[in-house]
Amino acid sequence: MENFVFGYCTKILFGRGMEDKVGAETKRHGKKVLLVYGGGSIKKSGLFDKVVKSLTNAGVEFVEFGGAQPNPRLSLVREGIKSGRGQKIDFILAVGGGSAIDTAKAIALGIPYEGDVWDFFAGKQKPQSAIKVGVILTIPAAGSESSMFSVITNETELLKCGYGNDLIRPVFAIMNPELTYTLPPYQTACGCVDIMMHTLERYFTNVTDVELTDRLCEGLLKTMVDKSGRVFENPDDYRLRAEIMWAGSISHNNLMETGRIGDFSSHDIEHEMGAIYDIAHGAGLAIVFPAWCKYVFRHNLKRFVQFAVRVMNVEQDFENPERTALEGIDRIEKLFVKMGMPVRLSQVNIGDDRWDEMASKCTKGDTKKTGNFLPLAKRDILNIFELCR
Amino acid sequence: MENFVFGYCTKILFGRGMEDKVGAETKRHGKKVLLVYGGGSIKKSGLFDKVVKSLTNAGVEFVEFGGAQPNPRLSLVREGIKSGRGQKIDFILAVGGGSAIDTAKAIALGIPYEGDVWDFFAGKQKPQSAIKVGVILTIPAAGSESSMFSVITNETELLKCGYGNDLIRPVFAIMNPELTYTLPPYQTACGCVDIMMHTLERYFTNVTDVELTDRLCEGLLKTMVDKSGRVFENPDDYRLRAEIMWAGSISHNNLMETGRIGDFSSHDIEHEMGAIYDIAHGAGLAIVFPAWCKYVFRHNLKRFVQFAVRVMNVEQDFENPERTALEGIDRIEKLFVKMGMPVRLSQVNIGDDRWDEMASKCTKGDTKKTGNFLPLAKRDILNIFELCR
Repeated sequence: MENFVFGYCTKILFGRGMEDKVGAETKRHGKKVLLVYGGGSIKKSGLFDKVVKSLTNAGVEFVEFGGAQPNPRLSLVREGIKSGRGQKIDFILAVGGGSAIDTAKAIALGIPYEGDVWDFFAGKQKPQSAIKVGVILTIPAAGSESSMFSVITNETELLKCGYGNDLIRPVFAIMNPELTYTLPPYQTACGCVDIMMHTLERYFTNVTDVELTDRLCEGLLKTMVDKSGRVFENPDDYRLRAEIMWAGSISHNNLMETGRIGDFSSHDIEHEMGAIYDIAHGAGLAIVFPAWCKYVFRHNLKRFVQFAVRVMNVEQDFENPERTALEGIDRIEKLFVKMGMPVRLSQVNIGDDRWDEMASKCTKGDTKKTGNFLPLAKRDILNIFELCR
Repeated sequence: MENFVFGYCTKILFGRGMEDKVGAETKRHGKKVLLVYGGGSIKKSGLFDKVVKSLTNAGVEFVEFGGAQPNPRLSLVREGIKSGRGQKIDFILAVGGGSAIDTAKAIALGIPYEGDVWDFFAGKQKPQSAIKVGVILTIPAAGSESSMFSVITNETELLKCGYGNDLIRPVFAIMNPELTYTLPPYQTACGCVDIMMHTLERYFTNVTDVELTDRLCEGLLKTMVDKSGRVFENPDDYRLRAEIMWAGSISHNNLMETGRIGDFSSHDIEHEMGAIYDIAHGAGLAIVFPAWCKYVFRHNLKRFVQFAVRVMNVEQDFENPERTALEGIDRIEKLFVKMGMPVRLSQVNIGDDRWDEMASKCTKGDTKKTGNFLPLAKRDILNIFELCR
């Protein structure tokens, strides 16, 4: 087990009707709020009105800032920073999924910073402070509601970069599973894949003697394997939506990483795809991950056998561990298919014409390997693309 | 699944050498520290000198306050409050196990309060503020290093009461598994039982559709069942000590309770035993819990079958679920025996002469049932005592 520092200060308010508490929670932190949201579905669903009522009742002023979209754009972040400064806002409330939240977090970093906010994402600067962020979650997926991360796409340079800092971990996250009933099946599936992936990227580690976190990861994954395969037929089943929503937070709040070193190369590869092709993050991961597994599993066969047996319920073939491992990989790929996810690049119209560009960017021009389980050079990433052609 | 609010703000610094960071961490919160510890083992081990050096290097003043002991006493808490006020301390650092930490937390509540600190434990008052507490943990057991709870014994009235409030959740907890190598086997075993019990008391719930937390609980319990049975032969095995230490925190930071309603009647009964007999908390729990299981398992047989199969690795007898459940209970009792724990009252010289008094106090004179899984009246508690006579 590795040394670690772990802190997790987001106050979670989980369950039916919790959105009505947003005014009271916000009031603890600010008086004038930038209200960040996405495409407007929160207006159709009536959530927006509820939020406005709760904020108003609490005596909190707000400024609307809509338009956040998947693979959230740097240009919108810059706009938000300008608007937030102009309006002298002292708190940011994101209502939506990972895109709204990540946009809000990036604005929170940018407002008190004199330079360009991209400096943080490009690794050029470290922030000294940030505006506090609160969240009402409507799409369980990114885990951004209680994570320290924000992922932003620089659409001019075709770069998608993540940045993590405890300064932008939301101070509260309101989660009502009922708010997720209306998510379309495809978006639900993308979210479920992302949730599983945040744990899978940590599960595949070379660090030994991490049984407790292994078992916590396995418990979360088993739950998600079951619920992800059933939620499409039962979109308004509170029991399924609630397990998925809570798993989404725990999967990415760093608990599952305590004492271990995660991999995250599937995420890194997908970020390159998302920067160019603008496909849904979860769909990209569903394509990359099974291929990654097939490419790396021999590197640490025991771990893939453990995954197959403990998570995917494969009966162990003691004479043939490779067969056991491959059966586990096959089952997760089949689960993704059952969920309606693509598992090949061709299914999302990604040809091989820009593989080289993506593999190159992912490895800084083949100068830096990505991932930790089996660090991948440019050649390896091309091989992985081949496996999910 | 039930609605819940969950927040967990303790910064965990886990691993070898982390105690050297105590000065820097303390300095973020205070300038003059009350240093609360137990019987002096930290002086023999050299830990005290390390702490003094780190505090001094960080420019933090401190006032020593030793003498905390198991079933921590109200009289010592009152002394600490007096001393802390006189010395104008602005932070409390507990170095030790649950007793030192719970003493520190109670002092933290008492210093800013004009009345008597017992008011909080007796449920007569709610605190408005508290001095911040930090921890260096040397005995994994109580989970107090990141919990919101303090349990104090009023030795005049023979009452042992717990009180929980986020105000007293430690702001940091330093955990170096190496500091636990020298714990004697009996104390190690008591700690392991306590850690398991914090999850078991939450695992046995009547709330349905809590699969994620079920599986997290099961993962923690499986890990503890394995490590608890092995640590005595390998007291200086970092791998075992580390898993136990981290499990101790997660077991009692409320994560395992999210969405469910715990029971805690075994704890309640043990507190009555501890108030009169001053036996080790973990030993008392090892006696009460298997008897509690035998008394209540038919109330929700499915849950006890699940426990037997998923935690205690019992092969399910589909024709005879009672047999499966009882085998699970038998295995945990046998594990406690293997660990050197008592499992009968006679083993710790508790005769039946004060059963009535304890059962009566536990149920407020038979006016209030204890626990949630199967609420217990006075008669039930007497029956449980009979089962562990």
